[in-house]
Amino acid sequence: MPESPIRKLVPYAEAAKKKGANVIHLNIGQPDIKTPQLALDAVRNNTLEVLEYSRTEGSEVYREKLAAYYAKNDIEVTSTDIIVTTGGSEALTFAMGCIGDTDDEIIIPEPFYANYNGFATANNVRVVPVVSQIEDNFALPPIEDFEKLITPRTKAILICNPGNPTGYLYSKEEIQKLAKIVKKHDLFLIADEVYREFTYDGREHYSVLQVEGLEENAIMIDSVSKRYSMCGARVGCLVSKNKEVVKTVLKFAQARLSPPTLAQLASEAALETPQSYFDEVKKEYLERRNVLIAELQKIEGVKVARPQGAFYCIAELPIDDADDFAQWLLEDFRVDNETVMVAPAAGFYATPGLGKNQIRIAYVLDKERLVRAVKILGEALKSYIG
Amino acid sequence: MPESPIRKLVPYAEAAKKKGANVIHLNIGQPDIKTPQLALDAVRNNTLEVLEYSRTEGSEVYREKLAAYYAKNDIEVTSTDIIVTTGGSEALTFAMGCIGDTDDEIIIPEPFYANYNGFATANNVRVVPVVSQIEDNFALPPIEDFEKLITPRTKAILICNPGNPTGYLYSKEEIQKLAKIVKKHDLFLIADEVYREFTYDGREHYSVLQVEGLEENAIMIDSVSKRYSMCGARVGCLVSKNKEVVKTVLKFAQARLSPPTLAQLASEAALETPQSYFDEVKKEYLERRNVLIAELQKIEGVKVARPQGAFYCIAELPIDDADDFAQWLLEDFRVDNETVMVAPAAGFYATPGLGKNQIRIAYVLDKERLVRAVKILGEALKSYIG
Repeated sequence: MPESPIRKLVPYAEAAKKKGANVIHLNIGQPDIKTPQLALDAVRNNTLEVLEYSRTEGSEVYREKLAAYYAKNDIEVTSTDIIVTTGGSEALTFAMGCIGDTDDEIIIPEPFYANYNGFATANNVRVVPVVSQIEDNFALPPIEDFEKLITPRTKAILICNPGNPTGYLYSKEEIQKLAKIVKKHDLFLIADEVYREFTYDGREHYSVLQVEGLEENAIMIDSVSKRYSMCGARVGCLVSKNKEVVKTVLKFAQARLSPPTLAQLASEAALETPQSYFDEVKKEYLERRNVLIAELQKIEGVKVARPQGAFYCIAELPIDDADDFAQWLLEDFRVDNETVMVAPAAGFYATPGLGKNQIRIAYVLDKERLVRAVKILGEALKSYIG
Repeated sequence: MPESPIRKLVPYAEAAKKKGANVIHLNIGQPDIKTPQLALDAVRNNTLEVLEYSRTEGSEVYREKLAAYYAKNDIEVTSTDIIVTTGGSEALTFAMGCIGDTDDEIIIPEPFYANYNGFATANNVRVVPVVSQIEDNFALPPIEDFEKLITPRTKAILICNPGNPTGYLYSKEEIQKLAKIVKKHDLFLIADEVYREFTYDGREHYSVLQVEGLEENAIMIDSVSKRYSMCGARVGCLVSKNKEVVKTVLKFAQARLSPPTLAQLASEAALETPQSYFDEVKKEYLERRNVLIAELQKIEGVKVARPQGAFYCIAELPIDDADDFAQWLLEDFRVDNETVMVAPAAGFYATPGLGKNQIRIAYVLDKERLVRAVKILGEALKSYIG
């Protein structure tokens, strides 16, 4: 099992706090946004007397309402295409478990969400990376780069859209290019779309489930965690029109009995969240992104990809080893007794040596602190390089 | 992925209900007992504004309180020996994932909880069964039977104590025999102890964590599901004094981020459940067991194991194929428009052909219905055989 790229730094962050320092966390994807009140209320007002198992595939009424939510997003699915999971994490594990056997391969554009490695290891599936570049904001790599990597063991291409850690939002054209290649080689296209709601600059999200003719190849992963700022619910889902996939995933799901009951109550209620909530949250994230990018660009030698979705961005720093830099920040650097914790990006790459001078920043904290954090980062770079 | 032995029957049960029949479920391990009020209240009175991730290893305060609960049960562990999981299911998956590589082997006395097959398949671990017998209530098979099956690929012995589906409670002596053999061959002894609280006839539960000198070999699986009748919480844990095991399991846990937050609130509160709750629940289960066994023994040709723990028993019927019988009950047999659904036991055996004339009965319904259900079973057998 690979270790999370952030985990190694945790003891240093804890030591810094013990010494009284304030640590601004740019490393965590836990939004500070309030959970919609109606979701919290649904839990507080529940009248259960026995906290029973839900159905293995998730409560019927929740799946019906989910299907209606997708319909509103121009994704035509029914409740029988949906399996509710314990977080998007479990949906990804099930997807990897169901598409391949030991040593089968799955192609993923890198940098990618580091836990994909863990899910692959748990399922004995091999991750084959295809490099995307900071210079073009981590857009889809040339389709020939994918083609070169396809072998008889290749079973799927996996994307995160919008991307963690890149913030890149794939265009309709890019998704269609992927659709073409997976159909040509009879692969699955797995799309982790948990950040669907968070897109900026007037751009719209295009789902793999919207591609006509891709019904048998598309598997979509979703979660309530980021959408409604309820990461602790542990409710996600896997959606596919491919009946064989749903049937196999259901067998995996049966072994773990059911997704959490209380959190499904919250998730069901959350589907009634008014558009005004998202408008406000998106406005907040957009302002944070703009502030963050503007501040980062003021630092000499820093290159930054412009995210169009989610709430992450990758920045390239004028250093050799972001692991060392991140540890040094926590151990040795303070501005007014304050420092920052960043996620070194090498852990988001599968190719050894890539991303060593990059970090991931999550903009899930208020603008004032974001500005302060980037100022500290700027000061730190001067001192570290000097 | 193997299919659950009950799942195949579900469409027949649904069809029977659609036709207006009443189906008494002897097949489900979902207790009808009320969840302790203080656990429900903890959720209803929660004041969270953001439903955040908990710590990967479970909330600190919950693990501290769990350690105190174990101490009360003569099990000396600290919070750092505990990783909170999403149900006992996840703890079992992590345990199997962490002890072996592809094609490693794990020896399990059969009949065993059918989902062990699913966890093993998901982890590419092979289940090697050792047969226990209904004639001696499914006691521990002779230790030589284990010894014969041990190969260089054997990594662990897994027991469920008290047992699902057998209801058998291993004695201190039996646990010590197992301890000796796992130490001799440097294996792990994994014990699924989720039914610890439910023991009868004055018998006491003896945990693998109580065996002196077994600290490096013992892995205990636990869950709040049955203890507090909160199966839908999806909160369990893995406990071991072996630091390497805990470290590896933590890596698996990191990939899925955290166990459910709301359910941990309920689980933490549930630890304060007064002894009177358990006294009452145990009394109820004991009466049900006695009624069930007495009624089953009235039926000619039925052999039944006497359970001393949990709330299951295995009955051997004077038939050839319990799968067929169970389906026939749902499709064709009624007494006053009522029938029963049972779990055919073959699915609890890994050896092909074993258990074909056995069924598992869960006594998680009231005595009056239990009696009616067994009466229907008796009538049905007469009619089926005739």
